[in-house]
Amino acid sequence: MKELSLRTEARTQLLDITAEVNAALAGAEGALVTLFVPHTTAGVVLQASGPNATKVAGDVERALEQIVDEGWSWEHTSEGDRNPWAHVRSALTASSLSIPLVDGKLGLGDLQAVFFCEFDGPRDRRLLLTVT
Amino acid sequence: MKELSLRTEARTQLLDITAEVNAALAGAEGALVTLFVPHTTAGVVLQASGPNATKVAGDVERALEQIVDEGWSWEHTSEGDRNPWAHVRSALTASSLSIPLVDGKLGLGDLQAVFFCEFDGPRDRRLLLTVT
Amino acid sequence: MKELSLRTEARTQLLDITAEVNAALAGAEGALVTLFVPHTTAGVVLQASGPNATKVAGDVERALEQIVDEGWSWEHTSEGDRNPWAHVRSALTASSLSIPLVDGKLGLGDLQAVFFCEFDGPRDRRLLLTVT
Repeated sequence: MKELSLRTEARTQLLDITAEVNAALAGAEGALVTLFVPHTTAGVVLQASGPNATKVAGDVERALEQIVDEGWSWEHTSEGDRNPWAHVRSALTASSLSIPLVDGKLGLGDLQAVFFCEFDGPRDRRLLLTVT
Repeated sequence: MKELSLRTEARTQLLDITAEVNAALAGAEGALVTLFVPHTTAGVVLQASGPNATKVAGDVERALEQIVDEGWSWEHTSEGDRNPWAHVRSALTASSLSIPLVDGKLGLGDLQAVFFCEFDGPRDRRLLLTVT
Repeated sequence: MKELSLRTEARTQLLDITAEVNAALAGAEGALVTLFVPHTTAGVVLQASGPNATKVAGDVERALEQIVDEGWSWEHTSEGDRNPWAHVRSALTASSLSIPLVDGKLGLGDLQAVFFCEFDGPRDRRLLLTVT
């Protein structure tokens, strides 16, 4: 198992980590890599790479903020800076994601990139990689 | 492959099954365990453990009920007690989840627990565990 | 790794691919098959099979269209036929799904089927299968 250390910079942020994951995989032998997010206010998704990646990621961030409305009545907000909406946004994305390995690298589609999803940043975060 | 039998107690319920999964894994050797939900009106997510777990789980339950509104017009309701919204809530969470194994136990993050998601209970349910 | 070629026929479509996946798996030996979607405007989910499958799939399609509203203000629409909502619907479903193998076939629950989720069709699509 390998571990990636990440730093997010905003409250809600889709962060392209494709290069970091491929670097951590260097020399790995196996058929599949499973990414695992050991946090309950974060997630992982695949989204567009390339020239439109930033716009698309921004749209996904805003849409998740709109789908899970912070104005709803919540239980878990009595102790100050609680963040139940971040837990729900995490549940809507993925906590684990398995991607085929091709020649020791992520076998992604064209114009596909791996994004770490921060829903309660900025924070230091971890991502675990298991090759099988 | 191992199988867990579960009993849910409410129509919508996030049920902490971390202890049951770890008990079923006792002695397992491998790098990864994959949880699989063989039902289409249920799911599995990772959420908070610890003193706030119940409040957070309740917030996630209510948010999923709000995101998928039973008042929308649905096709699959003509035969009585049909539940299309439960199928959608299931699609928004996960049907499979892969978690690293550390010393034969779930390698979860601090304050992270595995929850079975019931969207059409109360019912008897199953969860399948595959170690690779 | 095996690859499935698919053709979707509508803009939003849940397509039952259980038979195609089982055919591609014929003779496979292993404990688990992981389906991977190499596209960012598509996904994969498990939903109902049997006599009500078409109605349920239609309800899931319409619900995902309602949850992610094309009328919201989006960034990534300036260049004509852009589709940020399709990316969000993809993030809400799954890009990878791992299913136990039983006697070389998908070990699904009763009345459970694998659906490819098209959110920007009609298109030619691919699905990658990895057995571990």
